[in-house]
Amino acid sequence: MPIARRIADYQAKGSWIRKLFEEGAQLARDGSGKPVYDFSIGNPDLEPPAEFDAILKEVVDDPSPGKHKYMSNPGYEETRAAVAADLSSDHGLPFTAESIVMTVGAGGAVNSALKALIDPGEEVIVNAPYFVEYRFYIENHGGVMVTAETTPGFDLDVDAIAAKITDRTRVVLMTNPNNPTGIIYPQETLDRLGALLRELSAKRDRPIFLLDDAPYRKLVYDVDKCTSPFTAYENSLMATSHSKDLGLPGERIGFLAVCPRMDQWQRVAAAAAFTNRTLGFVNAPALMQRVAAKLQSVTIDLDWYRRKRDLLYKELTRMGYNVPYPQGAFYIFPEAPGGDDVAFINKLKDLRVLVVPGSGFGKPGHFRISYCVTDEKIEGSLPAFEAAIKG
Amino acid sequence: MPIARRIADYQAKGSWIRKLFEEGAQLARDGSGKPVYDFSIGNPDLEPPAEFDAILKEVVDDPSPGKHKYMSNPGYEETRAAVAADLSSDHGLPFTAESIVMTVGAGGAVNSALKALIDPGEEVIVNAPYFVEYRFYIENHGGVMVTAETTPGFDLDVDAIAAKITDRTRVVLMTNPNNPTGIIYPQETLDRLGALLRELSAKRDRPIFLLDDAPYRKLVYDVDKCTSPFTAYENSLMATSHSKDLGLPGERIGFLAVCPRMDQWQRVAAAAAFTNRTLGFVNAPALMQRVAAKLQSVTIDLDWYRRKRDLLYKELTRMGYNVPYPQGAFYIFPEAPGGDDVAFINKLKDLRVLVVPGSGFGKPGHFRISYCVTDEKIEGSLPAFEAAIKG
Repeated sequence: MPIARRIADYQAKGSWIRKLFEEGAQLARDGSGKPVYDFSIGNPDLEPPAEFDAILKEVVDDPSPGKHKYMSNPGYEETRAAVAADLSSDHGLPFTAESIVMTVGAGGAVNSALKALIDPGEEVIVNAPYFVEYRFYIENHGGVMVTAETTPGFDLDVDAIAAKITDRTRVVLMTNPNNPTGIIYPQETLDRLGALLRELSAKRDRPIFLLDDAPYRKLVYDVDKCTSPFTAYENSLMATSHSKDLGLPGERIGFLAVCPRMDQWQRVAAAAAFTNRTLGFVNAPALMQRVAAKLQSVTIDLDWYRRKRDLLYKELTRMGYNVPYPQGAFYIFPEAPGGDDVAFINKLKDLRVLVVPGSGFGKPGHFRISYCVTDEKIEGSLPAFEAAIKG
Repeated sequence: MPIARRIADYQAKGSWIRKLFEEGAQLARDGSGKPVYDFSIGNPDLEPPAEFDAILKEVVDDPSPGKHKYMSNPGYEETRAAVAADLSSDHGLPFTAESIVMTVGAGGAVNSALKALIDPGEEVIVNAPYFVEYRFYIENHGGVMVTAETTPGFDLDVDAIAAKITDRTRVVLMTNPNNPTGIIYPQETLDRLGALLRELSAKRDRPIFLLDDAPYRKLVYDVDKCTSPFTAYENSLMATSHSKDLGLPGERIGFLAVCPRMDQWQRVAAAAAFTNRTLGFVNAPALMQRVAAKLQSVTIDLDWYRRKRDLLYKELTRMGYNVPYPQGAFYIFPEAPGGDDVAFINKLKDLRVLVVPGSGFGKPGHFRISYCVTDEKIEGSLPAFEAAIKG
């Protein structure tokens, strides 16, 4: 075998999402002509907002020279200032261009942040259920992933986090709104977490950081805005992207924001700009940085998502599924009837419906539906969901 | 200090290029009104070819839906097939879309390749002088950088490489055409290197790979095309980008190509697609992939570069500099008069000319001029170069 052993090991363990993607492709080609209802991946069918197309054309038509050159590694000043202004208004804190590093999506932001913050052997606490790629992201930089359970309602469990903190803990990593549950962590919970981390950090050379992976931060359906890590805790960072709020996952445009209340925040932002370069990202794509600078106040059609959330929640609940009420993102995380999530998703697969077992997110007993698909797909799948819980 | 110790160490050691960039910015603001001649970085002043603008507009105006969604991690089939066709014609080997992983620039390609190939503690041989970021790229993945010297004419020294190979060697990394020398490694040298690596690999479980970092592969001025790692050695990979050949460094569009003659090349390409995802790159930017698919036969104006290469080589040689004749890239690497490269670049800096000392590339005694600037800048700097060698 020619490749690195650790990569071969990772690949052998596989990813549920990838397995399902492949099985879905096979199902679609089985010659039956019947549709496959694929709710396995988060790749929205929704086009970017109309403002995006107009601004993209404007940016492309702009005749000024040097538009595709390298800029400074953290990104264009103009883009970072626009991002900072939006964050300042959202969180009531004085973000500046210097607080922002533009990145290759949220994946680039999380990796640049972890590399800047953790030394080899240091621990990163994740909260189950968690995004499947976190293990790779943490181990990329020699970190050790430690799992804390969440509450029965999938809120962060501050006591469970406290119990997992050791002398080697450097980062608590969360996804808010959450993938795979769609839960928004209440501000009160974040505030309690902030108080815990503040108290523990006071006794240390280096603080414990809170890293909020927040690509869904603008996809919230019952409130005006998502809860804030920055007001809860000074040593917090946010990794996010425009993959979901502008519908641009393929374009890899995101950013890392460092809390302006953090001691030596400039040092942390500079370290992340350095790791963004030395990890090989170098800078966020130039053209999309120029576009993002002009679209900070624009968000994709939230009604498109809210409608699906409402429909799925209502129908699944009616059928008898136990469904934690999702307030954001485009995921819903019902309990698997019978308790065995893998058996249940296989049952759904036999009915040509693809969903991801909670086991893939460190949380067996549930399954994830990614509802960023057309209404027709959702409506078409309902009989299968009903048959699966009855059969 | 809040950040990771290893990152603070890296930053403390600093980068010559960054230092010069900052000093150059200071010089430019010193109020003297005199120009600064900055030859320190490789950020071309040349606009992309006219074909690029036309194709970019065509791609942006294309009304088909889903253009900004995730595609499969290795990239669009159409783009990979176009890249494969160009490589096949260039190297006379049967590349296919499956041999190609589209990446976030050549930096993304080198990192994805190294992560896919090396296990922690394995060694990567670089050839001095080498691109300054290689140490970071190798250590990112737990690799150990080992340096081999090149010949007095800056060709690869196959005997020096052979002397550095141990049981832990996994990759030989080269840059062809070279940064910082502009030298193209002769095919005969690559063939000898291939023969050495083939012989040593035959005795091992896993081969020693040759990784060619080739962002300058189309910037060659005296020949039709650059020499080929693929015809020299079956276990070879190429990491490259359109940063230089299409003038798009800010857009982060590149690819990794796996030699179709490699045993289990599909396994290596799949591993690199996996690491491209799990390192947080996820995929190369969608829009630029669509553009690149249509521009594989287009190259930026080579005359723009050749003219500068010829002018600088002629003038520096006339002044008495000892200059290795550069055949590609946009760098020239003269010997530092007096032998002390750092002292000499400081002398040039006092004359408002910024160049990078060879010490920054693991090769003291020389300095690098990056000539991807306007003719006026080059002409304006010549008196300073003349004064520096005389004074």
